[in-house]
Amino acid sequence: MIEGVDPEIDAGRFPIKRIIGDAVQVEADVFGDGHDHVICYLQFRHEDDSLQQRVRMEPLGNDRWRASLQVSKIGRYFYTIVGSVNHFGTWRSDLLKRLEVGQDVCLELQTGGLLVEQAARRAEGKDAIQLNEWAHILRTECDSEDAKVVALDPILAEVMEQYADTSLETKYERELSIVVDRERGRFSSWYELFPRSCSPVAGKHGTFRDVEDRLPYISRLGFDVLYLPPIHPIGESFRKGKNNSVTAEPGDVGSPWAIGSEIGGHTAIHPELGTLEDFQHLVAAAKKSGLEIALDIAFQCSPDHPWVKEHPKWFRKRADGSIQYAENPPKKYQDIYPLDFESEDWGALWDGLKRVFTFWIEQGVRIFRVDNPHTKAFPFWEWVIGEIKREHRDVLFLAEAFTRPRVMERLAKLGFSQSYTYFTWRNTKQALTEYLEQLVGTEVGEYFRPNFWPNTPDILPEPLQIGARPAFMSQLVLAATLATSYGIYGPAFELQENTPAKVGGEEYLYSEKYELKHWDLDNPKSLAPFIESVNNARRENAALQASHALVFHPTDNPYLICYSKKSVDEANTVLVVVNIDSFHVQSGWVDLDLDKLGLDSREPYQLHDQLTDTRYLWQGPRNYIELSPLKIPAHVFRVLRRVRSEKDFDYYL
Amino acid sequence: MIEGVDPEIDAGRFPIKRIIGDAVQVEADVFGDGHDHVICYLQFRHEDDSLQQRVRMEPLGNDRWRASLQVSKIGRYFYTIVGSVNHFGTWRSDLLKRLEVGQDVCLELQTGGLLVEQAARRAEGKDAIQLNEWAHILRTECDSEDAKVVALDPILAEVMEQYADTSLETKYERELSIVVDRERGRFSSWYELFPRSCSPVAGKHGTFRDVEDRLPYISRLGFDVLYLPPIHPIGESFRKGKNNSVTAEPGDVGSPWAIGSEIGGHTAIHPELGTLEDFQHLVAAAKKSGLEIALDIAFQCSPDHPWVKEHPKWFRKRADGSIQYAENPPKKYQDIYPLDFESEDWGALWDGLKRVFTFWIEQGVRIFRVDNPHTKAFPFWEWVIGEIKREHRDVLFLAEAFTRPRVMERLAKLGFSQSYTYFTWRNTKQALTEYLEQLVGTEVGEYFRPNFWPNTPDILPEPLQIGARPAFMSQLVLAATLATSYGIYGPAFELQENTPAKVGGEEYLYSEKYELKHWDLDNPKSLAPFIESVNNARRENAALQASHALVFHPTDNPYLICYSKKSVDEANTVLVVVNIDSFHVQSGWVDLDLDKLGLDSREPYQLHDQLTDTRYLWQGPRNYIELSPLKIPAHVFRVLRRVRSEKDFDYYL
Repeated sequence: MIEGVDPEIDAGRFPIKRIIGDAVQVEADVFGDGHDHVICYLQFRHEDDSLQQRVRMEPLGNDRWRASLQVSKIGRYFYTIVGSVNHFGTWRSDLLKRLEVGQDVCLELQTGGLLVEQAARRAEGKDAIQLNEWAHILRTECDSEDAKVVALDPILAEVMEQYADTSLETKYERELSIVVDRERGRFSSWYELFPRSCSPVAGKHGTFRDVEDRLPYISRLGFDVLYLPPIHPIGESFRKGKNNSVTAEPGDVGSPWAIGSEIGGHTAIHPELGTLEDFQHLVAAAKKSGLEIALDIAFQCSPDHPWVKEHPKWFRKRADGSIQYAENPPKKYQDIYPLDFESEDWGALWDGLKRVFTFWIEQGVRIFRVDNPHTKAFPFWEWVIGEIKREHRDVLFLAEAFTRPRVMERLAKLGFSQSYTYFTWRNTKQALTEYLEQLVGTEVGEYFRPNFWPNTPDILPEPLQIGARPAFMSQLVLAATLATSYGIYGPAFELQENTPAKVGGEEYLYSEKYELKHWDLDNPKSLAPFIESVNNARRENAALQASHALVFHPTDNPYLICYSKKSVDEANTVLVVVNIDSFHVQSGWVDLDLDKLGLDSREPYQLHDQLTDTRYLWQGPRNYIELSPLKIPAHVFRVLRRVRSEKDFDYYL
Repeated sequence: MIEGVDPEIDAGRFPIKRIIGDAVQVEADVFGDGHDHVICYLQFRHEDDSLQQRVRMEPLGNDRWRASLQVSKIGRYFYTIVGSVNHFGTWRSDLLKRLEVGQDVCLELQTGGLLVEQAARRAEGKDAIQLNEWAHILRTECDSEDAKVVALDPILAEVMEQYADTSLETKYERELSIVVDRERGRFSSWYELFPRSCSPVAGKHGTFRDVEDRLPYISRLGFDVLYLPPIHPIGESFRKGKNNSVTAEPGDVGSPWAIGSEIGGHTAIHPELGTLEDFQHLVAAAKKSGLEIALDIAFQCSPDHPWVKEHPKWFRKRADGSIQYAENPPKKYQDIYPLDFESEDWGALWDGLKRVFTFWIEQGVRIFRVDNPHTKAFPFWEWVIGEIKREHRDVLFLAEAFTRPRVMERLAKLGFSQSYTYFTWRNTKQALTEYLEQLVGTEVGEYFRPNFWPNTPDILPEPLQIGARPAFMSQLVLAATLATSYGIYGPAFELQENTPAKVGGEEYLYSEKYELKHWDLDNPKSLAPFIESVNNARRENAALQASHALVFHPTDNPYLICYSKKSVDEANTVLVVVNIDSFHVQSGWVDLDLDKLGLDSREPYQLHDQLTDTRYLWQGPRNYIELSPLKIPAHVFRVLRRVRSEKDFDYYL
């Protein structure tokens, strides 16, 4: 009987996710009737391999078994559990019990000889000869000491395992799968900017060349993904003006999400940004700076998009024959036509959309941020991500779905590599703790990879509006250390742009979505150096590149949140404390779970702050913290264990 | 998308269990992409019905839906979830939002008209006519108030639901099942006795006729199942003597579990007990006394069993050709031959074993207590219970498997109606609470029905050995109120037999398993009247016949355990407090969860002790308890809520 397999998502319907080099720990309940011993294996293979590999599972007690497999290639792995009654093992263990009480075991040794003889028939070459020799001794010399020595020889047990009768094996009824991505699938630092605002000249439309000039800056800040809002021709019909006004003034540049004009649609480039060659050049230049370009894929059309004429069936009609524009009743978005996934021409539509991805993949893009995937058909995503990852395993998809939890989880199950989250709206210690425990501490953590954003062009959250600089700093540390992937919308973030269009809302005043901006990167109040230190800490501490070991530690102050993480190999431990009050110095006592941190309460340990390069010596669980919003409202400590050397000289690991 | 269906055992591999009249509450996450409304149903049918029934599911928020079905027949039910996008509901709700802000809705009304027209095509008769009329108004009079009235008419919404397009429905990928038993499947009170010890004359072998004379006594005590250890001919070879001695003296009666002699095997009757007709007579007489006979099915043979000669292939051979007797190395049980479920003749063996059940079913038996099912093949149990319940849905099986939890759970999943448990060894407040929370508070409660035994012929537990009378009383109350099924091995229990064969062991001295006993039922120290009062409380309080609402309430004394239960219809609530210290008066404060009890902290409530007929008036959560082991170490309270009548006269429900 094989049951209770973990991890397993929705009875094996969906894969779990890992990155290359990860270990996948699998557990299962494996047992038989009676008192027979069982033997079981974690069986797995990469999709490219026909040969199954096996790892023997180790008993945890209470019929629970565990084994780990290592994923060393990107793509899909398949795993399941096989097990069988271990007749030889049962016999051997019974024999030991009989010998302990001095029973005559001659008959039992003969029985064992029969088992060995059967195994010999399944073996070949010198193993077969050796097994037959052993069998002969057990069957004919059962009164001798020799036979007992043979019976208990661990080498015999090993060879018997090798030639066990696999025809009687039980295989778990389902084959489960793992999607293995490259490292950036889990650990990535995103920087979003509007290329059109990158011109060094105020009021001038920026170009891809201008973005290239910005690369050293973004790279210095420590980011590795540069995400661009849609770069396609912008529609003229119903174009939005500044501050989302329904009528555009002459010269208004419109929203990049109103995709398509007579120049082209989702595979064309907005002429003012440059040419396709310029884009390819940018992709290559970014790569040289250690940056990857992520493109925004927003499957919606302006009324001027070529598809409106070429594929009228891809759009829903209203009762009067006109094309149905986007609505969220009573709100109307007449500048945007959604695509109709229930169209009778859906096959061609899906192919057309897939072609958008493959076009940009051909230009060197490997990361896509998908706009509002939850308003498109779920089966489409499973299909298109599956198709694309079959051909290009290194492609990553970020789901921008700010919607209900089950829908967001479903999109992750269907294949999205990363997902936007509710992080932006979890602003108290309790809310953050509960949210992270859901994301990381439950089954959701097996397939949903959170990407935390303190701001986006659509979202200027309340804490940043009212908390200003200290809030930008604390939100940055929270995002960058709670999640392994995070991003900011810059330069609005580092320049702490925080004026809302209206109080009580989350839109920016003079939002960059509707106009060109000119940002002064040299402004001395910029948080660029702080961001650089946070990203450095992320890069230099593998603990911040994994979330499996996230633990929250109690503090006696509701404004002080404290948590720790460990690297996959457990060699690196980071402890973070953040003051989430942007207005007051907060102090208090943390109560560390030393066991989970791997610390000995009898020994002092050192905390090395990665942001300020200061060091503290602590001992035991209870320690004092004081953080001022006027300085740096957070500690990101590397935890250094004291180690006693041979010469009794103390140093820290 | 339909997922997270609850209850569902091992991806639908196993059924849940219910008794007739129960409600089955089913929940699921049901959602679609976008903002479309969904509509979903719990769909089910009894195995005899070809027609599916549907109950509309109600939203619980966060995409979670719930519905209940009622099981009104024994046998199998099948259930699943179906759902679809509710286009009309979405349209109607959008229309309301548009009307609220005074938008022009003429085009929307026409769109709705199209939806109604499509439904009309699926309808027939006057519904079709009515729908077409409505459609006409919506399509042609969209400017009129009439059209708006039609659009929002709840009757239209109802008829539209009736004629929804089921071709686009999503059905959950698995059909799940429910095994529905008669009431005794969950609520039963067992009394075990050895028929051979029922003679009124000391030293004389008892008969079925003697058991008949005992029926009024057992019935008066309030039991409804009379369970008999094996009634078959007892083997002579290697017969065990008194106190499990390996050599029997002349006149020793042997163990009833050493089944089979030259007279016959599992379908024969031990001649000294009587004839098959006597047995049939006993079954009928028991029925008249409100008792059902449960037989012990122990699939093992004495060396003298007819099968040993008739079916030598059904037994495993040792290396020397002799038949393998039972062993638990280094212990040997030479009086018992286990059956070989891996025999090449397994098909005939399975049929033969099934025939044992059907033979006794033909004699009127409907309850079987199966001895050590975990040492027989799992697939056999699934097959044989399935076969028998297909022909005789009212048959119940109790699994006597004192083994590892996963194995016990598996047997329950495979079909056993009830299961022995670890209750006997859970003797502290913490251990009992944790164990019950596992049994009742987890998925296990869906398929594993515990049957609690304070003693059995094999088990004289430590608390009874050292705690004597008060321990017998408290263990009885715990078993009878924590579990809905429980049993005692009598008259050893009511006469408080508690001398162990050896200190540190759990066997009885002069165990009835190996010799005739003569019990003095008139002994004034007998607990018979107390047992009667406990069984009365069980019968008169439906709360004690269900465990779904079991709640433990904190007390400030580790020897006082307090819990409550509610009946399925919630009309009856019982609160139990037990002093588990057999040596001292224990007192303390209970802290009741009034919400869970359905009590108002502003009103007093009455507690009516079902064992002593005393009454207490309490208010609020915190109340005082004092229980003496020298009197009755437990309260079994019926909770009576104060109700204010029209004339402001207070009485209790």
